[in-house]
Amino acid sequence: MDEVISAFSSKCIQLFNAECQTNFTIADQQGKLLAELDERFHTKVNDYLAQESFFLELDVIEGSQDALRRLSEQYEIFIVTAAMEFPSSLTPKYQWLTKNFPFLNEKHFVFCGDKSIICADYLIDDTPKNLDTFSGKGLLFSAPHNMNETSYVRLNNWVEVERYFFR
Amino acid sequence: MDEVISAFSSKCIQLFNAECQTNFTIADQQGKLLAELDERFHTKVNDYLAQESFFLELDVIEGSQDALRRLSEQYEIFIVTAAMEFPSSLTPKYQWLTKNFPFLNEKHFVFCGDKSIICADYLIDDTPKNLDTFSGKGLLFSAPHNMNETSYVRLNNWVEVERYFFR
Repeated sequence: MDEVISAFSSKCIQLFNAECQTNFTIADQQGKLLAELDERFHTKVNDYLAQESFFLELDVIEGSQDALRRLSEQYEIFIVTAAMEFPSSLTPKYQWLTKNFPFLNEKHFVFCGDKSIICADYLIDDTPKNLDTFSGKGLLFSAPHNMNETSYVRLNNWVEVERYFFR
Repeated sequence: MDEVISAFSSKCIQLFNAECQTNFTIADQQGKLLAELDERFHTKVNDYLAQESFFLELDVIEGSQDALRRLSEQYEIFIVTAAMEFPSSLTPKYQWLTKNFPFLNEKHFVFCGDKSIICADYLIDDTPKNLDTFSGKGLLFSAPHNMNETSYVRLNNWVEVERYFFR
């Protein structure tokens, strides 16, 4: 969900810039975690995530709605998200999904912690460790923090995701 | 979760009796869904589930805490629950689990709709259709509504669950 269909980092950077009077951009984050950009992100992001409104206000990643709508006509789509570390995110994440992806089946939303429990043919994820424990075909969705990873099939955006699945 | 570690039906019957001045017991429900006992359960249960307090107040199924504590020393335990039909249940279910099963890893809680996405060696569930789509070994946990089912390995209580896994 975060960084694949919801613009998590850009919202963190936006809030951080406003609060700490910095001028970071997504481009500054290439190959780094937010905390490597400025160590204050470590505590600030925890503060942001504790607010229910944070998840409700996330932007949608470009192209994800149209691509998932088309993919859902031929594929069974599940949305799997690590939500258990921030239980206050559970309801807002559900509301965000039903608002922005109304064509998806809500019975196919999975809120978990450890994604190794998931059984599917493909997993599109921005986090390498989730792909490592996945038994199907893992696909790395490009996000600022993972740009130096070279161990996975990389899909840079939703145009490339569609091209991969409709090839 | 419901009927395996949380006493879902007995709470529904308790609320229904109080509201409708009936005297149903769990014994009356043998082999039936609640709505087959009295069709008013159909709408009443939906009303109960819409209240966040409903899930917070559920009793723990007898023996489940001690059994899961011992099992968790030798097995990796995930709690998988169908929560997406009642999104207001998400946060209370999380709170109930951390309160009553504090020894379980919250990263191993999975809130989903369709359990066919779950990959594990065993699934202990009271609902036959969840076992039908499971790729590992499905075990039917006895609940009033499933007492006429004969297609699965049945475990009647948590003593039998422990005996099965420590045999």
